[in-house]
Parts: sequence; structure tokens; C-alpha cells
Amino acid sequence: MRQQIKIVEVGPRDGLQNESAAVAVATRIALIDRLSDAGLPVIEAGSFVSPKWVPQMASTDAVLAGIRRRPGTRYPVLVPNLKGFEAALASGVEEIAIFGAASETFSRKNINCSITESFERFEPVCTAARRERIRVRGYISCALGCPYEGEIPAGTVADVAARLDTLGCYEISLGDTIGTGTPRAARRLVDAVAEVIPVERLAVHFHDTYGQALANILAALEAGIRTVDSAVAGLGGCPYARGASGNVATEDVLYMLDGMGLDTGVEAGAVLEAGWFICDALGRQPGSKVSLARRAHCAG
Amino acid sequence: MRQQIKIVEVGPRDGLQNESAAVAVATRIALIDRLSDAGLPVIEAGSFVSPKWVPQMASTDAVLAGIRRRPGTRYPVLVPNLKGFEAALASGVEEIAIFGAASETFSRKNINCSITESFERFEPVCTAARRERIRVRGYISCALGCPYEGEIPAGTVADVAARLDTLGCYEISLGDTIGTGTPRAARRLVDAVAEVIPVERLAVHFHDTYGQALANILAALEAGIRTVDSAVAGLGGCPYARGASGNVATEDVLYMLDGMGLDTGVEAGAVLEAGWFICDALGRQPGSKVSLARRAHCAG
Repeated sequence: MRQQIKIVEVGPRDGLQNESAAVAVATRIALIDRLSDAGLPVIEAGSFVSPKWVPQMASTDAVLAGIRRRPGTRYPVLVPNLKGFEAALASGVEEIAIFGAASETFSRKNINCSITESFERFEPVCTAARRERIRVRGYISCALGCPYEGEIPAGTVADVAARLDTLGCYEISLGDTIGTGTPRAARRLVDAVAEVIPVERLAVHFHDTYGQALANILAALEAGIRTVDSAVAGLGGCPYARGASGNVATEDVLYMLDGMGLDTGVEAGAVLEAGWFICDALGRQPGSKVSLARRAHCAG
Repeated sequence: MRQQIKIVEVGPRDGLQNESAAVAVATRIALIDRLSDAGLPVIEAGSFVSPKWVPQMASTDAVLAGIRRRPGTRYPVLVPNLKGFEAALASGVEEIAIFGAASETFSRKNINCSITESFERFEPVCTAARRERIRVRGYISCALGCPYEGEIPAGTVADVAARLDTLGCYEISLGDTIGTGTPRAARRLVDAVAEVIPVERLAVHFHDTYGQALANILAALEAGIRTVDSAVAGLGGCPYARGASGNVATEDVLYMLDGMGLDTGVEAGAVLEAGWFICDALGRQPGSKVSLARRAHCAG
């Protein structure tokens, strides 16, 4: 039997929120529906943050109202605070994600508060989520490096993971936000965090800014990781380096996993088509090498 | 002490020969000089094939006459037959490379002869090389897949490697010509060939057409490989998929190795600059994600 890997598709949220062009609600719905049809088990559908800060994620309520909910797929949304949680709840979400940082400076610059203050905001969100039986996933950004502080010790990430665990997060995703990590660091990170949270409850969320994401995912798999975040077409630039890549492309992750005999239950061809669809809408090239190679083949 | 990895820079040969635009001799010389200044230990300088077939490699004799030869750097050239060998010898080369295939169909379509016939051509070349004390490196193309035959059994590659060894090749480079390989296959390949040739005499030559090259290199390093072929700026398209990527970028390989604490003796910044230089000449973007991220940073 082939071993099972869970792909968490973050393109409609982490991807689109970092594209400079905002995409129409109907297009966001069509993208999510295509990703659902591909059989992805988790699709991050949007974010309930202020449209002043992230205009690309405005009208996430309308997106949630418009998508077809495929049985077997979950549609979490990102929620920064209690106000966002209430909006998410009103939109009928069954799962949310909260976003902590492993770097004090990044936390202050990105969400304008210390790590401890961010946890003070998460606490009422998680209490309310528990009451409403909403599952909570926790992200940790800058887990392999910070644009301001440089390397982040794995022990610091493990401490933040333990705090997210205490809040009740069922899964914790380790984010290489700026994509500076390399395989041995990725391995050390997973090993360190797995000392406080069982590795089955950890995910990796790697950006491909420096081309290292697949190698880092391979190292994480070797450390026991079985949940991988990725974005169709490698959507999302890197907010700290204009013109550089963002999320690792789902297409390229699927290609590697399939070649390694690891099963995801996802139909790779349908993901490729979803990627071409959204890239046409954005007027950009897919950030997936598999996609470019396959398209070149199709074009002869 | 940091472990030592040898980078074989193939941009000026495998890279440029697969770019659609041919580059002036002076530009090829300037590129090689910049790569020498970066401290690369091996730079493939060109190819003595018919300019009818590979116009991008015409005038390799003029390139060899024009470059500064840095002590500590070797400048091998590709040689398809005895005629090419004699031209290479007249240009004062000290090392050549010969090019075998692991796929019978690829051999016939690419060099118009069977694998056995190709070895009949190599034999007089290698005899002459021995006589002239010229070192010979052997390539094996299609080691992880063939555009016509699909998967190639690792045992077939090991057989071809043994034949190159018999001819006297001091090093054998395993090429994933079409970039379809994935990490477990790369690992299996190295393990299989290492049963017939000591792993210290093997190199990996991976193309990034499907985004898998760095992950495959990581798997190869785990199997004991210590020599890695790469091309500055990821030069070279994929001849079988227009618009798709070619060689893995030296910049991205160096970034991974450095992050892993592996030493190459190469100055990464100088390679980045060599990449920008040649990409300006070619009118293309660098195919290195490290390069794009760094340039985006430089541009603000």
C-alpha cells in the first residue's frame, strides 16, 4: 500500500493574497471549485482580515457562499482576531487558521504586536472556536528564517508550537515565509518541534523563493512529516523580494510525491488545469515547472 | 571541517548549446573568465561537434584560445569522435568528455547510432586520449528517463557506466536529460551504479525541467555523491519541451550546499554576477531562483 500524504492547498488564500492583482469573487469561486474537483482534501478558501490591509481577500464571505462544498474536502479560512472569527462563523466555516510568528521583529512589523500579544488575541478566538466546535489550525511564520532577524533557532519555533498546542490547535504548520531554509535546517526544525508535538500533527509550509522548497519538503518527509502545504501554480509572490517566487507549486509537489510512490488522492491533471485557469485570470505564467514543461509539450 | 563538494560548471557548454540564441565568441570567453574568477574547479568550455548540428558551439577553438586559464580550474570540452578529439588536442585541451546514452532509442535519434556503435566511436578517442595523457569524463544521458522509452532501469545505466569505466573514464556523470526523475529514483540510480563504480567517481547531472533537480541532488548526496554538475543561471532550455527549464542552476545548488554546511570553494556572489552577465547577453531571465530573489532585493 502506498503511504498517504495530505496536501493542504493554500493557493486561494496565501497565494492570491500575495498576488499584486486582485481577482474577482467569481474567479476565486471557480478556482476553488476546480481544486475541489481535483480531489484536494483541504483548500484554504480565504481570510477574514480587513480589506484595508489585504484587499485581495475582500468578500471572502461571498466566496464561501458561492463555492460547491465537495464531501471530503475542508475549506478553512484565516482569522486574525475575534471580529474575524465572528465573520467566519457567520459564513458557515467549520475550520479556521490562526497565524503566529517565530520572530519577534516579524510579528511586530507584520501584525504590529509582540508574539505574546498575538497569543492574547488568539486566546478568545480559540475559546470561541472550541465552543462552536470549529477546528483551529496554527501557522508559525519565519520558522526557517526572518527577513529582519535572520536565522531563527528551532527551539524558539518549538516554543511557539507548544503555545499553539495549548490553545487547542489540531495541526501546526511550520512556515518558511521567506524561503531561505535549506534541507538540513528543515530536518532540524521538524525534529525539534516533533519533540513537543507529535509529528503526525505537524505540517510544512515552504516557499520557493530560493528554489529550495522541494528539497526541504523531501528532508521534512524523511523526518516523518505527512502533511504538506502548497499553492496551485506556485501562486503568491514573495512580499520581501519583488519578482521572486512564493509558495511551492502544488503541481511540483504532486509530481515529486507521485514519483516517490507516495499517494495524495489528488488528480494531478486537474490541478494543472486549475493552475492554467487562474494564471490566465492573473495574466501571469504558472510558477510550476511541471506546468511549464507540460504546457510546452501540449503546444508541441 | 566542512565536507567538500565539487561543482562541475556546464553552462558554457550544455547550457549555451541548448539556448536558441547563439552567443559571440567574446561573450563566451568573458563568461568563462568570470566563472574562473568565481573559483569553480571545472568549467566545461565548449564542444568539438559539427557547427552544422550545434551552431552554438562553433569556434570552440577560438574560445579556448581566448580564455584565461586559472590555476586550479580545468576546462574540459565535449568530443563526439576522433575528428573532434584531434581538433580538441590542437586547441591544447587537457581533458575531454564523451557522451553515451542509457536509452537505445535516444542514442539512435540523438546521435544516429546504437549504444554499441557509439562505444565503437569512443574507443579510438579514448585510446588516443590515453596516449596523449588527456583525461576523459563520461556522460550517460537519459539515466532517469528517456523521452521515447520512458523509465530506464538503473541496471541498464550501470551497464553503460561499466563500459565507460572500461574505456578509462576517470569520472562518470549520470544525466537526467529530460528532468523527469524524482528523489527515490535518483537514490536507486546512484546506489545501482555505485555497485560497479566507486561513488567517489560518480557525478550527477540533473535538469530541472520538472522542478525536481535540487531534491534529486539531495537524494544523491545522501547516497554518497560528492560531484554535482550545474549551469550558471540555469542556462539551457529543454530541447524536448520548448519554454521549459534546462540544467539546474549553479546558484541554487551553491545556496543549498552552503546552507547544508557543505563546502565548494566557489564564491557564490561572483557566480550570480556571471549569470546576470550572460542573461543580459542572451536577453533572458536567469533560471535561478536565488538569482531572481537577490536581484529583486537589489532592485528594492
